[in-house]
Amino acid sequence: MPLARRTDLGDSAYAGLEVDVCGDLQRCLADTLAGGLDFLVAPLAHPRHRRPSAAAASRDPSAPAPAPFARSDLLLNSAQWSSQVVGKTSPWIDADSPSAPYRADSEAALRQELGWAAHLSLHAVLLPPPRLGAANYARIVCQFLGALSHTALWVRVPLVDPASLASAVDACTRRRIHDPFEAWAFLRAACEGHPQLGVCLHVGASLPSDGELARWIGEPVRAIVVAEDAFTTNKRGFPVLPKRHQEFLTSMLRRNVQVPTPAEAAAQAAASTGSRDGWHSTRRRWEYLVYLFRKIPDATEQELVEAGYRDYLQAPLQPLMDNLESATYETFEKDASKYTCYEEAVLACLRDRVTDADAAAGKETVLMVVGAGRGPLVRASLRASERCGRKLRVYAVEKNPNAVITLQSLVAAEGWTNVSVMSSDMRAADPPEKADVLVSELLGSFGDNELSPECLDGAQRFLKDDGVSIPQAYTSYLAPVTCAKLWNDAKAYGDLAHMETPYVVKLHRCSLIADPAEVFTFEHPNHADVVDNSRYAKLRWRREPRSHAATMHGFAGYFDAKLYEGPAGNVHCSIYPPTHTMGPTGEPMFSWFPIYFPLRYPVHVPAGCDVEAHMWRCIGPSKVWYEWSVTAPDVGPIHNVNGRSYWVGL
Amino acid sequence: MPLARRTDLGDSAYAGLEVDVCGDLQRCLADTLAGGLDFLVAPLAHPRHRRPSAAAASRDPSAPAPAPFARSDLLLNSAQWSSQVVGKTSPWIDADSPSAPYRADSEAALRQELGWAAHLSLHAVLLPPPRLGAANYARIVCQFLGALSHTALWVRVPLVDPASLASAVDACTRRRIHDPFEAWAFLRAACEGHPQLGVCLHVGASLPSDGELARWIGEPVRAIVVAEDAFTTNKRGFPVLPKRHQEFLTSMLRRNVQVPTPAEAAAQAAASTGSRDGWHSTRRRWEYLVYLFRKIPDATEQELVEAGYRDYLQAPLQPLMDNLESATYETFEKDASKYTCYEEAVLACLRDRVTDADAAAGKETVLMVVGAGRGPLVRASLRASERCGRKLRVYAVEKNPNAVITLQSLVAAEGWTNVSVMSSDMRAADPPEKADVLVSELLGSFGDNELSPECLDGAQRFLKDDGVSIPQAYTSYLAPVTCAKLWNDAKAYGDLAHMETPYVVKLHRCSLIADPAEVFTFEHPNHADVVDNSRYAKLRWRREPRSHAATMHGFAGYFDAKLYEGPAGNVHCSIYPPTHTMGPTGEPMFSWFPIYFPLRYPVHVPAGCDVEAHMWRCIGPSKVWYEWSVTAPDVGPIHNVNGRSYWVGL
Repeated sequence: MPLARRTDLGDSAYAGLEVDVCGDLQRCLADTLAGGLDFLVAPLAHPRHRRPSAAAASRDPSAPAPAPFARSDLLLNSAQWSSQVVGKTSPWIDADSPSAPYRADSEAALRQELGWAAHLSLHAVLLPPPRLGAANYARIVCQFLGALSHTALWVRVPLVDPASLASAVDACTRRRIHDPFEAWAFLRAACEGHPQLGVCLHVGASLPSDGELARWIGEPVRAIVVAEDAFTTNKRGFPVLPKRHQEFLTSMLRRNVQVPTPAEAAAQAAASTGSRDGWHSTRRRWEYLVYLFRKIPDATEQELVEAGYRDYLQAPLQPLMDNLESATYETFEKDASKYTCYEEAVLACLRDRVTDADAAAGKETVLMVVGAGRGPLVRASLRASERCGRKLRVYAVEKNPNAVITLQSLVAAEGWTNVSVMSSDMRAADPPEKADVLVSELLGSFGDNELSPECLDGAQRFLKDDGVSIPQAYTSYLAPVTCAKLWNDAKAYGDLAHMETPYVVKLHRCSLIADPAEVFTFEHPNHADVVDNSRYAKLRWRREPRSHAATMHGFAGYFDAKLYEGPAGNVHCSIYPPTHTMGPTGEPMFSWFPIYFPLRYPVHVPAGCDVEAHMWRCIGPSKVWYEWSVTAPDVGPIHNVNGRSYWVGL
Repeated sequence: MPLARRTDLGDSAYAGLEVDVCGDLQRCLADTLAGGLDFLVAPLAHPRHRRPSAAAASRDPSAPAPAPFARSDLLLNSAQWSSQVVGKTSPWIDADSPSAPYRADSEAALRQELGWAAHLSLHAVLLPPPRLGAANYARIVCQFLGALSHTALWVRVPLVDPASLASAVDACTRRRIHDPFEAWAFLRAACEGHPQLGVCLHVGASLPSDGELARWIGEPVRAIVVAEDAFTTNKRGFPVLPKRHQEFLTSMLRRNVQVPTPAEAAAQAAASTGSRDGWHSTRRRWEYLVYLFRKIPDATEQELVEAGYRDYLQAPLQPLMDNLESATYETFEKDASKYTCYEEAVLACLRDRVTDADAAAGKETVLMVVGAGRGPLVRASLRASERCGRKLRVYAVEKNPNAVITLQSLVAAEGWTNVSVMSSDMRAADPPEKADVLVSELLGSFGDNELSPECLDGAQRFLKDDGVSIPQAYTSYLAPVTCAKLWNDAKAYGDLAHMETPYVVKLHRCSLIADPAEVFTFEHPNHADVVDNSRYAKLRWRREPRSHAATMHGFAGYFDAKLYEGPAGNVHCSIYPPTHTMGPTGEPMFSWFPIYFPLRYPVHVPAGCDVEAHMWRCIGPSKVWYEWSVTAPDVGPIHNVNGRSYWVGL
């Protein structure tokens, strides 16, 4: 009974059984698979094997050779070992014990067991929960991460409500001593966020607050163990999870997290005694989890399209330097909600500019679409014109000669006699008359990042003095984020440039550390004496004294554009979460993914500590770029100095 | 009157005159040089030139073209510009002003002036004191650092007693808001400690505590301005400096720091009016500084030898893998104090092992020198034998066949009939009898880092059960340090390996952030059942709540070896500062420089905050290496994981 044949939930379609004792590994694994599970989490060493200290062993050379500490690798074939077994290390190991001999034994055992797991090419090893400051454990993990080829290390982290813990804070490191997250963050920092180091959350009876849970979304959580005590029993005697547990588990399953189910003691015994009682109750909990999994709604068509883009780093477009390809236009044109917004904006604008009487008298409005592409804004404008009975003369200006061909064909096919196509860069175009309305869709994920300000400044010279630009204004927003995967993906390129480049990303395994703050605003037309599109913003995200600790991997950026605001209407187009534009079917507009600005080094944000950052929009003779830096909780380097790593060409 | 023709004080032999106004640059520079000074610190822009905001300028196109903001570069030739003039930026500039137009003007002016300085190829530009959190200023500095070819930027930092300042601390960044050091540390962090960014300390009437002063030694202080108000007048009416000022200045002059003397207002006027009054008083202060400079004792012969090694990174020796060269032996043999220690140790040991009666009866002691090199320990042992009248049979074991030749010649030349030379690795040697005393000098700067433990463990098999090793034990010590130059030199290699390698260094521009703490101890002979030379130490340096903030670039390491301790004497050989071995002439033993363990990223240690670090000595089948990490004030990566960057071959 594998969970389901679903491709949209990735690794979460894999679930396992965790046992503490496993007398007969072959039978135990066979039972697990027969029970519908995909893998077994079993101890790497014989549970009764307690490695005597090296000193003690050497003292008695006449003692019999010790039994091997683990089972023979011949018990299973290598495909089974590598795909159906996750190993777990011995529970007695404490590599940071204050007792030096105990520590030495622990270290030797940990090395032996990890070495064995690597020998078996296991998919993963489940490691014990780290303690804050456990540097020796961190170092051993770090050494293995550098040597392992494909075995992942999952560190078990208990998910406990920090409110229930002593709130002691280490004055020097500002870390909450009893918060398991801090211990995990310590380990991760020591290992520099190695991509093979992941978390296995251990969910018990109590759950932290929603905010505390949310911070795990951006962390590399690979698996969740739902402990027996997390379950309650319903009226019919079946195990069920409380509502918040259900919600959290569902949200993690949607993010491709696997679920090893711990077997209770009886079930463990079952493997060797043949008793089915314990197994029965484990199975019931398992069936409940399957039920939860199946309840997750199937992905919508749009979600399936986007699934391939989730947490995938894309370099932002360079629309001024490059010509878009047909497929890119097609992708953009798919999002009806965006063009509905534009239609509404043009509609309101026309109603405000042309009275009913003037409209009846046949007054024409000159509307210019700059960057007309394959014509969707022309179509939206014409639809608005039709709806309100205001006549238009339309100029469609487009620099891409390939798109101009589509545009000309479209005009001919549709019989749009009032539309003139101009094949020209808007900064150099020379239209025969000035426009009442200038319509453009030049915004990037961060608003101005595809150089809309520079383009519209150039184009506004063919706008009448009282002419209107659609959009009239746009504002960018930034929020500090946890997104271990994105950071590691940028890091994997192995150079500075990729750590100083903003990316367009469908954020999925990403948690915001604070609400997005306003960054830059641009207004059009710009009637300033000296137009200056350079910008500087100092951003401070206030966090409550009782807010939790988090790891910052960079910033998520959004925009909100005011397409048109006037007596006849106020139309925005936005990917800024609080005002995100919704399509007619209730789906969020998907034309723009957010933008991700990475940090070269992850920053630990202590509990209750504000985040402060600086963002600059810089302008040179031939390029525009951003620079950014963090100055609280600590001062970091300035990123992308002089646009050395990333810039947009003018 | 140049300070002196001394080569041992480098840049400190250069002194300049700082003026705020300089009507006639050519004459002002000529006067400066005629007055015995080496360079002039003058404003880059006309002091009356206040750049109107770009907006204001554009509003009035009919206004006359503005006067050029700076003097023509034709006034001086390029050699004069680049060696005799240091530029300073306009005092009104505030690139982080809360007023956006003022900020824009400041930014434009700062760019203009820095651009001008780069055009003139000035040796340096003196920049205004940074403010804590002045990110825009930091960014502009950072942009120029990336573009300048050889002009250095000196940031003026007032040296004030933090006790006199409000002690407010920013809760988020843990930085003392009013401490100018914090503002400097902020700027440096934003610019990633760029090597062309330096400090110009501004010394006024009050001085901070000695500890606060000491932290500047490891910072890149390039120049010190001694302000007029720092001087008092002595009975004869001459300007003099208070004693602590003298001491600080002397210590900085010894570290190659230049001294621009500020001219007072009258002196500045002198340049244009021809009055000599102001100049006279400036000159008297200058003459006093010359007097201070000349009072610095000439370098000793040893100091002159060491001058070339100051703050110079040397890779530690690999004596097991490589054979030392003749010159290296010669260098080591020069240090009489070391061999005096060994002689005393052997003397005490022989007195303890052989009673006077036994000595009189002709009892012989078997003494084995392992790693005899060119024989200095043989000679020291024989001297000790002679002094106490105990007979010796000496075996000199040496693996380097080249050194063996010297040794054999020496034995023949000196007629040492009781010395046998054995050409063999001590780990493989097979001497005809067991030894009473095993003498070795295998210690590195960090004690065990040249594998003395492994060598002596191998050699102890030819030691009698009650035999003695000289040394009997050794302990290593570590202290967190500020040493910007060393860090930058390691960084300049541009790879990970050089940031994870310990270096032997004559520490000079280096300040200890806390007293050295004990790390590892080894004892010989080692009678443990299982000899384990791997080690782990968790180190915590407690700092008083009122200790100052500092920047940590790594750790300085030392050792203290107990050569011999017994009833007849207790002889140590040490470079651990509190017990540093002194030679007969009162000079410290110089055979070993300290060791420097770098950190990949400098760590800001907030005021009153402890430092915690971990150090491991790891052992593999064919190599020994260290790993280290910092865990307070914040958690950093583990360095040299698996010995990936540095190791010593067995």
